[in-house]
Amino acid sequence: MSGTDRSKKSDRLFPGHRKNGRAKPGAGPAIILVEPQLGENIGTAARAMLNCGLVDLRLVRPRDGWPNRKAVAAASGADAVIENVRLFDSTAEAVADLSRVYATTARHRGQIKPVVTPRQAATEMRAALGRGEKTGVLFGPERTGLHNDDIPLADTVLQVPLNPAFSSLNLAQAVLLIGYEWFQAGSGVPARQLVTNQTGLASKEELLNFFAHLEQELVDCGFLRNAEKRPSMVRNIRNIFQRADLTEQEIRTLHGIVKELAHQRVRRPKRRPAEP
Amino acid sequence: MSGTDRSKKSDRLFPGHRKNGRAKPGAGPAIILVEPQLGENIGTAARAMLNCGLVDLRLVRPRDGWPNRKAVAAASGADAVIENVRLFDSTAEAVADLSRVYATTARHRGQIKPVVTPRQAATEMRAALGRGEKTGVLFGPERTGLHNDDIPLADTVLQVPLNPAFSSLNLAQAVLLIGYEWFQAGSGVPARQLVTNQTGLASKEELLNFFAHLEQELVDCGFLRNAEKRPSMVRNIRNIFQRADLTEQEIRTLHGIVKELAHQRVRRPKRRPAEP
Repeated sequence: MSGTDRSKKSDRLFPGHRKNGRAKPGAGPAIILVEPQLGENIGTAARAMLNCGLVDLRLVRPRDGWPNRKAVAAASGADAVIENVRLFDSTAEAVADLSRVYATTARHRGQIKPVVTPRQAATEMRAALGRGEKTGVLFGPERTGLHNDDIPLADTVLQVPLNPAFSSLNLAQAVLLIGYEWFQAGSGVPARQLVTNQTGLASKEELLNFFAHLEQELVDCGFLRNAEKRPSMVRNIRNIFQRADLTEQEIRTLHGIVKELAHQRVRRPKRRPAEP
Repeated sequence: MSGTDRSKKSDRLFPGHRKNGRAKPGAGPAIILVEPQLGENIGTAARAMLNCGLVDLRLVRPRDGWPNRKAVAAASGADAVIENVRLFDSTAEAVADLSRVYATTARHRGQIKPVVTPRQAATEMRAALGRGEKTGVLFGPERTGLHNDDIPLADTVLQVPLNPAFSSLNLAQAVLLIGYEWFQAGSGVPARQLVTNQTGLASKEELLNFFAHLEQELVDCGFLRNAEKRPSMVRNIRNIFQRADLTEQEIRTLHGIVKELAHQRVRRPKRRPAEP
């Protein structure tokens, strides 16, 4: 996740020939950059889109024209997006085939509009997709954000809740957060899961056998000599190992640890008591 | 949101003197960058942290040392984070005061660990904060990600669900997504709200008065002349305006529009019927 793959040379010219990272076009919302200023930002936005499975990138009057070599370089291999870019002369033309459009703004613009979070927009856009409706998200120029006249072309304003004292995001980061929420809304990845590789979780029988082994050795060595406290000590020790979600292999490892600790192969010199 | 504020010159040296974007230290998880390679990435990660109200940045053996002029420049004014950076010689020392640690990885590393999404991690870290426990998130070097020996220093692996064919994020984007989820988990911003500025939503009485005015004019001009269809037409028209969540001021505007359309101040020449 935190690794940038430097092996992907991305300074070749368009049209790029590498076809990795492909995603089905048309499945997600269109990302519409209105008058983007820097080619680099178009490229990093394209990369963020493909991270999230989005491929429908539309540009309205990009300042430096199109195609743009800096955009290709910054896209770091997101060719599936860069090659499919469509150009438009106006925001109205860019949204014409869409049924539901969101306008991203950083500040409140004094227009009476519903305002949603990225998570809510993602839920709504997934529902719209289910009805066969096409959706899109407008992003304004880096320096100024969307023009006030572009906002009434959208149904809804989209604002990212962030630290109000420091909320400025760059274009690619804003695109990433919208795409991230889109992807999460459909990913179906469990919020928490234990990855156990080839081995499976131990059965409770295996765990109980280990408890029996451990507790017998603890009786033998004298650790459980306090009869009154013994039941609660045993419960506490059992809960330590229950919490660890042990696999079959790990149970075997623990049996071995207990056995070797209890019956030391190598006789060690007795430690002398600490000097007073 | 999509605007980068170019007015913020950030090429001055540390310690920076601008104190904007301050957030309470210690409130959120520590962000721990292990052997970060590029100063720029440390700076953009700091900016992403402050976007999300995080200020506890820790560096373990940064390749180019610390302080780092490129990091300051790239932080774009996130001085509150840069000035508080702490340096550590080892990952173990960097996590020593924390109670719960997450290790971000892009790929599965063959270690038996619970794996959570950023959203789940945010929920867990907020709960930990409520218990007074300090938390942190580990990020590895840009090129390789975390070393395999650093992963057992964490309770849990954190993976961002993204397009499996194109999941490589840069360091700042990975930090942004973790911080974003942290901020959302505590932001309390309504998922959808109507922003109405100074004016309030119209009362239903004001809306019904407008319906009466509109429908009377539609009767007078003949639009509702089909008596059989009239009830359903009236329902449909009323629902258009109900859906619009009208404010008091907008109701006044609509009264004016209906009045001026019905009783035209300027007598216009009759349009000739289209030629056959």
